[in-house]
Amino acid sequence: MNAAPSPAPDPVADFAAVLAAAARIAPHAHATPVLRSRTLDALAGCELHFKAEHLQRAGAFKFRGACNAVWSMTEAEAARGVVTHSSGNHGAALALAARTRGIACHVVVPEGAVAAKLAAISAYGATLHGCAATIAAREAMCADVQRQTGAALVHPYTDPRVIAGQGTAALELLAGGTALDALVVPVGGGGLAGGTAIACAAVSPATRLFVAEPSGAAETFASLQAGTRVTDFVPDTICDGLRGTLGEPNFSLLRAHHVEALLAEDAATVAALRLLWQRGKQLVEPSSALALAVVLGHRERFAGQRVGIILSGGNVDLDALSALLAPRP
Amino acid sequence: MNAAPSPAPDPVADFAAVLAAAARIAPHAHATPVLRSRTLDALAGCELHFKAEHLQRAGAFKFRGACNAVWSMTEAEAARGVVTHSSGNHGAALALAARTRGIACHVVVPEGAVAAKLAAISAYGATLHGCAATIAAREAMCADVQRQTGAALVHPYTDPRVIAGQGTAALELLAGGTALDALVVPVGGGGLAGGTAIACAAVSPATRLFVAEPSGAAETFASLQAGTRVTDFVPDTICDGLRGTLGEPNFSLLRAHHVEALLAEDAATVAALRLLWQRGKQLVEPSSALALAVVLGHRERFAGQRVGIILSGGNVDLDALSALLAPRP
Repeated sequence: MNAAPSPAPDPVADFAAVLAAAARIAPHAHATPVLRSRTLDALAGCELHFKAEHLQRAGAFKFRGACNAVWSMTEAEAARGVVTHSSGNHGAALALAARTRGIACHVVVPEGAVAAKLAAISAYGATLHGCAATIAAREAMCADVQRQTGAALVHPYTDPRVIAGQGTAALELLAGGTALDALVVPVGGGGLAGGTAIACAAVSPATRLFVAEPSGAAETFASLQAGTRVTDFVPDTICDGLRGTLGEPNFSLLRAHHVEALLAEDAATVAALRLLWQRGKQLVEPSSALALAVVLGHRERFAGQRVGIILSGGNVDLDALSALLAPRP
Repeated sequence: MNAAPSPAPDPVADFAAVLAAAARIAPHAHATPVLRSRTLDALAGCELHFKAEHLQRAGAFKFRGACNAVWSMTEAEAARGVVTHSSGNHGAALALAARTRGIACHVVVPEGAVAAKLAAISAYGATLHGCAATIAAREAMCADVQRQTGAALVHPYTDPRVIAGQGTAALELLAGGTALDALVVPVGGGGLAGGTAIACAAVSPATRLFVAEPSGAAETFASLQAGTRVTDFVPDTICDGLRGTLGEPNFSLLRAHHVEALLAEDAATVAALRLLWQRGKQLVEPSSALALAVVLGHRERFAGQRVGIILSGGNVDLDALSALLAPRP
């Protein structure tokens, strides 16, 4: 079957879009709790407020954006389904979001993707389409699926519906009654960071927003320093959700909102991961621990403040745990 | 210095004691949340309500009993401090409870105790007293410390103040507004089980109470079957908090309240542990997962019901994680 591609979504997310997303996803997404730990507060020298997105459906904030995209579509669009190329949290989130609306979901997965993640995507009812492990092959296969099914592409972080959806996590946190001095979120492609920038500026402009980035994949840091998007880098980090490149609209949002990037080495992220597990009893993934590592590593910047941290997800491969906990060479 | 030993506490805990404990510990202990997971509900075929005692202070329900004991003492008693012989969660809980009252705490620890646990007890300000790894040596050292300091012994599970304190977890859960058909708690010495039996009978007599026990340390099961306390057994289980023997008053409480014991093999407990980690994102210890394993292993007993589970603690030794996750021979 051939079908006309879906019309392109609005090119820019704004605060109205975040508010609309919050209303749209409310019947499907969890309003996640904010966790506290007096032990971690004492260690950090500040007051930490953890937004627990690892307790979100499908185990990560990604469900917010995927759900907003899926429920933003017209009936006619939705009937043709959605497609994406992510073998990680976004793939699983889109699969579950599509299931909440009862529509088809296609996920293009590169060779070599983790079997457990693919099983999770399948378990939510999505159809997997294998391809070679290059960006070009993934995009070609995506276009192919679009042509054959008419499914709408939902990009993991540049889609404005996704960015607006991700902004609802910060909206809940900042509207929760505690005035935060600072907010720290991890940055990879910049969907969460971009949405958070929009929500933060509108709800709590006095809250300084920081994005946390692994030293081994510091192109957002480099891009913000240079004032132009750096895309030529080879990521080397355990934060498997943060190896991608900051998107163009995401870069613009971070620039426009004067967001500052702070870095942490993987060793510091592993130490923070152990703290969140041992002290917080929360099984989060490395990308989440990175934000705590950044706070612990820039103690003087946060001393005595009320600091929000978005724990982005909890999809840890338990079989890889021991390798993660072992000292790196 | 020599001092007269503290007077013996009341020999029996009752519901009035549980209510008094709840009021007494309220300024110090957390009212822990009740967690839900639709994924785990679907897997279990029933509605699970997890009382999150791994988020209690010092990482286990044990703080409730220890705190109640410490704050039940007169000023004169308290001034002489407390002593116990537990290198596990009770030792840490008593140390923290003593710190909340600003009194001395002595913990007798046998040779071979896990260094990380001793460090935790020390970090809460308790004094460690090493001894040989036999029960006789531990009791002798405890008596010695009592003689020298006048400190009051707070037994980990037979002390009625401890039993009453442990009952406050079920009190919170059952008073929370959801009528439970069944409640499942792990049993070792029987402090939690005994206190829960008291609270359950008073607050929600229609709720059936089950204790979960490892097949490799099933003396409570055997004792309840035989109608007399079985103490001659050699525990073989990964549930390190449940290797002890059911106490005498604890046995009487379980008998009086017609509590039923259900068993699970360690392999089932490890599978449940993985579910709680991967799906619930909660880092609980094996003794907590045991209760879920029992529910999953007796599916017909709980089908379609509202089932409460007390997640007893979350003090997992991360360095032992990989061994725990590896298949057992």
